[in-house]
Amino acid sequence: MPPGATKYNGHFVNIDIQIDYIEYSATHYKHESSSANGLILHPSIMDKVQWYDIRGLHDENVINSISKRFDMHPLAVEDAVDVHQRPSFTEYDKGQHISLKVLHFDKATAKVSREAVSIYFGTGFVISFQEREQDTLQPLKSRIEGSKGRIRSKNADYLAYTIVDFVVDNYFQVMDFFEEEIETLELTISENSDNFDKTRIYELKKELLKVRKSISPLREAINLFSRSESDFVEERTVAYIRDVYDHTIQIMDNVDSMRDILSGLQDLYISEISLRMNKIMQFLTIVTAVFVPLSFLTGLYGMNFDVIPELKYQNGYFVLWVFMILLVVGMLLYFKKKKWL
Amino acid sequence: MPPGATKYNGHFVNIDIQIDYIEYSATHYKHESSSANGLILHPSIMDKVQWYDIRGLHDENVINSISKRFDMHPLAVEDAVDVHQRPSFTEYDKGQHISLKVLHFDKATAKVSREAVSIYFGTGFVISFQEREQDTLQPLKSRIEGSKGRIRSKNADYLAYTIVDFVVDNYFQVMDFFEEEIETLELTISENSDNFDKTRIYELKKELLKVRKSISPLREAINLFSRSESDFVEERTVAYIRDVYDHTIQIMDNVDSMRDILSGLQDLYISEISLRMNKIMQFLTIVTAVFVPLSFLTGLYGMNFDVIPELKYQNGYFVLWVFMILLVVGMLLYFKKKKWL
Amino acid sequence: MPPGATKYNGHFVNIDIQIDYIEYSATHYKHESSSANGLILHPSIMDKVQWYDIRGLHDENVINSISKRFDMHPLAVEDAVDVHQRPSFTEYDKGQHISLKVLHFDKATAKVSREAVSIYFGTGFVISFQEREQDTLQPLKSRIEGSKGRIRSKNADYLAYTIVDFVVDNYFQVMDFFEEEIETLELTISENSDNFDKTRIYELKKELLKVRKSISPLREAINLFSRSESDFVEERTVAYIRDVYDHTIQIMDNVDSMRDILSGLQDLYISEISLRMNKIMQFLTIVTAVFVPLSFLTGLYGMNFDVIPELKYQNGYFVLWVFMILLVVGMLLYFKKKKWL
Amino acid sequence: MPPGATKYNGHFVNIDIQIDYIEYSATHYKHESSSANGLILHPSIMDKVQWYDIRGLHDENVINSISKRFDMHPLAVEDAVDVHQRPSFTEYDKGQHISLKVLHFDKATAKVSREAVSIYFGTGFVISFQEREQDTLQPLKSRIEGSKGRIRSKNADYLAYTIVDFVVDNYFQVMDFFEEEIETLELTISENSDNFDKTRIYELKKELLKVRKSISPLREAINLFSRSESDFVEERTVAYIRDVYDHTIQIMDNVDSMRDILSGLQDLYISEISLRMNKIMQFLTIVTAVFVPLSFLTGLYGMNFDVIPELKYQNGYFVLWVFMILLVVGMLLYFKKKKWL
Amino acid sequence: MPPGATKYNGHFVNIDIQIDYIEYSATHYKHESSSANGLILHPSIMDKVQWYDIRGLHDENVINSISKRFDMHPLAVEDAVDVHQRPSFTEYDKGQHISLKVLHFDKATAKVSREAVSIYFGTGFVISFQEREQDTLQPLKSRIEGSKGRIRSKNADYLAYTIVDFVVDNYFQVMDFFEEEIETLELTISENSDNFDKTRIYELKKELLKVRKSISPLREAINLFSRSESDFVEERTVAYIRDVYDHTIQIMDNVDSMRDILSGLQDLYISEISLRMNKIMQFLTIVTAVFVPLSFLTGLYGMNFDVIPELKYQNGYFVLWVFMILLVVGMLLYFKKKKWL
Repeated sequence: MPPGATKYNGHFVNIDIQIDYIEYSATHYKHESSSANGLILHPSIMDKVQWYDIRGLHDENVINSISKRFDMHPLAVEDAVDVHQRPSFTEYDKGQHISLKVLHFDKATAKVSREAVSIYFGTGFVISFQEREQDTLQPLKSRIEGSKGRIRSKNADYLAYTIVDFVVDNYFQVMDFFEEEIETLELTISENSDNFDKTRIYELKKELLKVRKSISPLREAINLFSRSESDFVEERTVAYIRDVYDHTIQIMDNVDSMRDILSGLQDLYISEISLRMNKIMQFLTIVTAVFVPLSFLTGLYGMNFDVIPELKYQNGYFVLWVFMILLVVGMLLYFKKKKWL
Repeated sequence: MPPGATKYNGHFVNIDIQIDYIEYSATHYKHESSSANGLILHPSIMDKVQWYDIRGLHDENVINSISKRFDMHPLAVEDAVDVHQRPSFTEYDKGQHISLKVLHFDKATAKVSREAVSIYFGTGFVISFQEREQDTLQPLKSRIEGSKGRIRSKNADYLAYTIVDFVVDNYFQVMDFFEEEIETLELTISENSDNFDKTRIYELKKELLKVRKSISPLREAINLFSRSESDFVEERTVAYIRDVYDHTIQIMDNVDSMRDILSGLQDLYISEISLRMNKIMQFLTIVTAVFVPLSFLTGLYGMNFDVIPELKYQNGYFVLWVFMILLVVGMLLYFKKKKWL
Repeated sequence: MPPGATKYNGHFVNIDIQIDYIEYSATHYKHESSSANGLILHPSIMDKVQWYDIRGLHDENVINSISKRFDMHPLAVEDAVDVHQRPSFTEYDKGQHISLKVLHFDKATAKVSREAVSIYFGTGFVISFQEREQDTLQPLKSRIEGSKGRIRSKNADYLAYTIVDFVVDNYFQVMDFFEEEIETLELTISENSDNFDKTRIYELKKELLKVRKSISPLREAINLFSRSESDFVEERTVAYIRDVYDHTIQIMDNVDSMRDILSGLQDLYISEISLRMNKIMQFLTIVTAVFVPLSFLTGLYGMNFDVIPELKYQNGYFVLWVFMILLVVGMLLYFKKKKWL
Repeated sequence: MPPGATKYNGHFVNIDIQIDYIEYSATHYKHESSSANGLILHPSIMDKVQWYDIRGLHDENVINSISKRFDMHPLAVEDAVDVHQRPSFTEYDKGQHISLKVLHFDKATAKVSREAVSIYFGTGFVISFQEREQDTLQPLKSRIEGSKGRIRSKNADYLAYTIVDFVVDNYFQVMDFFEEEIETLELTISENSDNFDKTRIYELKKELLKVRKSISPLREAINLFSRSESDFVEERTVAYIRDVYDHTIQIMDNVDSMRDILSGLQDLYISEISLRMNKIMQFLTIVTAVFVPLSFLTGLYGMNFDVIPELKYQNGYFVLWVFMILLVVGMLLYFKKKKWL
Repeated sequence: MPPGATKYNGHFVNIDIQIDYIEYSATHYKHESSSANGLILHPSIMDKVQWYDIRGLHDENVINSISKRFDMHPLAVEDAVDVHQRPSFTEYDKGQHISLKVLHFDKATAKVSREAVSIYFGTGFVISFQEREQDTLQPLKSRIEGSKGRIRSKNADYLAYTIVDFVVDNYFQVMDFFEEEIETLELTISENSDNFDKTRIYELKKELLKVRKSISPLREAINLFSRSESDFVEERTVAYIRDVYDHTIQIMDNVDSMRDILSGLQDLYISEISLRMNKIMQFLTIVTAVFVPLSFLTGLYGMNFDVIPELKYQNGYFVLWVFMILLVVGMLLYFKKKKWL
């Protein structure tokens, strides 16, 4: 693929493209939905925020017309449709681009799937690009419509911040799922049950690495965002962005300590297996040590030598029984002392 | 939850809110206690430090009135009631906010629990937010009342420092508990007793991670605090803050070396299990190796062939005994040489 | 070897040297191929990019004449023919030199081989040095000829960038191969099959280290490239170079998380082996524990004492059978309870 | 403990306090010893260095009078008597304070003990605080008296440097002890002797962590010392301080590589145990595999069937012997091939 | 030892000191050899480089006279004779000092030994200090005499660079030896031969740590060298020093990835041992499981009950044989299914 290709490279190529247009100020709210064909690009409006939310990225016409309308840098367009792009923040002359990953945790398989979401914003407008049909950002839209929070009285940079904050909040939920999974693992190991699936630790570690690969660059991206000195980010928004930045650090901390905890669980599991082995071997050893000498004795008096004096004694058989019982008792006391019993 | 929500998100929602108001200077001391309803917000007083200590954060009225009185930034208010907030230091126009975690070590379960404490301070005032009813900061208040230390002659920034210092001192105590636990573990492993609870190492490591997650951001927060160039922190207080900063580094060092020590204990435990296994196997092997050949011999002369010349010898049985004893002695010498005995 | 030696130190010393000369602008395209002898060095042409692509580096005449023509710094020449040179970016007075490694992944052996490619460029020209006969950069040439992408309208620095980008894209393909290999390993371990080749994890780790040794310095080199403040790199190219830089970070992330995954696989494999051992031992223990007491009993009644009352009972043999069957059933229930069965 | 407490918190509270006063210049030398009661504080003398060496820190009077005489900052006094203080360098208005740890390695127990030593120095004077009675710094005093080295012609900052250098030299000796211990461990493991104390690796690692906790902050402290821009440190002394700084880095390197070596030893020990296990199991398997079939055969011909034709053959017994010997030889050859013998 | 001692602290105290004096410019070359007694110190000569190469450092007279001649800083002299000094670069007023370690790899024992070499240079002169009699730098001298490379036309700083470069090249050779050793280890493990020396991995890791302890500070030293802004280093030499710097990074990379590879080998070896254990146990289990039931059966019919009906059947013995054979075949099929065979 030549650099500069503006072709969507993800899996969602057959979905119906849906475009939401939301226009708001403290006192005003307008919402339009359209398909790819019906896309209308409005001119900028003073003191209003314009938000284009595009769901479905496979139609080059849509991408091209929107990128032309907002004069996006070719690289910003590329990043918007490149779903393998790692989270990043890039400043261009006419706007700023933020690539994000929304994480979904499937509880059944304990797998994390990643959805690419990116936003491009400048003075008075935000464009969000989602690759799936279902609207991850729906709660945000309701909040704007319902005028909850302080968002309606702020500008486009605050909307961009809100989207980023929304995505980061989603990470906390994913972390909670991991925490639950780890608690389940702890229980299963300590209950010693054979239901324990040894690959689970490995898989959770792998999924955590996926989360780490999303959150680590996201942290850097938000840091850059908070330090942006362009006109697109107002001074008063910076404190909020620093706040999200702190959240990403907290998530990083969580991911790292969960990885440590999983390593600890792996060690615990290995100890567990080894301990069980010891117990199996102790049992085997006790059984063997108790019966092998007895078998020797019975073999001894099963021999056919012409002369074996003991065999002639009237009470030989009963004396042997007493001797064998004493032997067994002695053995068991020995194992008791060795703490094998 | 929309950003900007000032709702307490912890567990202590049914407690009676208690508010302490302390006003002091070198020569003056006043103390008022009230419930949520009786909260009186005093005007600033020149040359006196005003300390509001709020215990119980679930009443939005209290939070709102105090935040309005001191013109707190919305994010500062959020952080004060967000108990999941990691330790942080943030400068705002009208004051500075410090989020802290007080750690409690439960000796019975060896679990660490974390209590959110945060302080907001500016010129002449400090507000402390505790989520629990019992007063963690009580000793500090007594010290001020008793005029111990140099605190009464200093300003609000020194009180803020003193609270932080108090919390950090609490970490040293938690570290001491960990040290005791580790010493107990060492003893249990080396005494080879089966009382050893294999999950203990894992759990201590996990609790240490919790401590680390509190102390590591705290260190950064205190560093920022010591470098604050706002008017709220006097030059002469900085040396003291640097001193607490050094303490946090020391705690970090301790946490990290304890984690290394616990890893070492894990290795030691694994060696221990493996060594025991070797001993079990040696015993089994010796028993087997001694008796299996003997059993073969007894089996040999238990056969019913018409012609087995040895069976006819007058002393056959006794000769076999001598041979078997020699065999056993030889075996035991062999194992002695192999150091299995 | 004295420093300053301009001798090729790789394996490809017997190949026929091939030189491509490509000259282009937005509207113009010329292509000449020649052997070592036929090398023609063209004068600079205003507004046109001149690209010399040299395949085969063992002929000192070729290297010398080209380095003289473009007034290359002795160290740049050294680096061009030193195939053990790690990826680097160096600025000289008359041009800039970039050392690269192209990676080839052999799917059969899962081995990575590295080919040294380096480029030297200045205003209006790029020289690329490849040590092998086959042309790794062929797709790039076709793209220029076909005028695909925006390359034809840009200058030499953009061509240099394009070559670097092309090489970095090649790393992504190698990463894909590794991912496939890891998936295969996961399957083989979890399917518990004995086909699992225990050295595979080790070898993949080793190959990843090779990739890391190429990508890590490459990242630094591209970082320097993007920060170059010389006249050779235009301002508008920098955004593109930053983009490749982001790709190298992404590859580093991938390499590091793959190494973590492989370590996890190693742990998983060790658990697997230990678990199997436990199962083998359980089986052995069950067989032994069931039959050893039975054998003792048969031995007991195989003894030749004159007086063994049980032997005289009419139903002795059948009673023993019942007893033995009860014993076995009891044993099996015991093992069932212990979850060994 | 309120901050600002100047109370000694170590174990040496019953010792007799001893104070040495040394006054020197290139041509002058005076030495006075006194007890806590006899402490005389001399006025500053131009061109002479005054060194107060205080051994025993539990007497607040001594500490207070000396800190008043030299106008020490409260925090400097606190640090002087706080023996849990980590190594640090702090600049105050009237002087500079350096906290150090002297390490003692007890060869019998292989334990490291730490003694707190700190120095406070300004223009023309050095005060050293030692918590123990015996004089760790004695060799230094002799050197000054004997006028060895260049110390007599230098100022107080050089004396401070010399004390620090002396302490750091002491670390090298401790490192040598560790090296000896490690060599002993290597020998014991490779000699395969059962004398090997498996806890030794763990304990050495733990002691190394103690050293690390002393040397790592010391390195930072000396770095700050060397960069001090106050008037207390002369330009010409800086090169010497940088030299000690290099030594601390070297010690850090040693500590870290020793920890790596100990980890390697742990791995080696685990391999060793596993290998021995394999040998034990091989032996058991050989014994079992050789005798179990033989016992079956003897059992076979010990049966009491009415018709067992082999039992009637004249040479049955001898044929069986031949067969059994061939069986054993075959087995042994098989194990030879498997390299178990 | 007081600081400032200029006493050689290495092992080579009985060797004959040899001093080479080389004087050269582009057109001039002079070479003088002398013993310690015959040392002649020449005055500086404009436009010529003077190189004193001293082999054997135990004679304080030689060291003192040369240090006086070139007005060396006391610390530079100390470092020249302190063979435990880690690699470093220090700038003094009258010259610059570089401490180096030459590594020798003994193929027989796979041990690395380190030789201290240091150089002091200023305008027009270089002094090199070697502790051994044999001349490590001989090839360099021949190169200067033979006027190979560009060295003759450059100044003293270039000679200093050349010596450093020569030493660093020597590290690459040592790395090659390590690579060979690792390849041998890989082969030995995978060939499963018992010749594998389990301590080899440990020892190679230890030797690599030695190399690391030399190369890591050397890298820093060369970095400082390349950034030196003194008059002793010409601008045009800097590119060359950066080139050596890149080599040291490459060596560091190699050392680190070799350590990773050795850790991988350790893991592989542990897997190998465990796998073998599994095979031994499988074999033991099969033998036991096959013969123990058979022995039970033979024991059964060896009993002496008056009534055992089976014993009276004409074909009892033969039926038992058939039954036993079926049993064995069933067992073997079972183990086949379990993949133990």
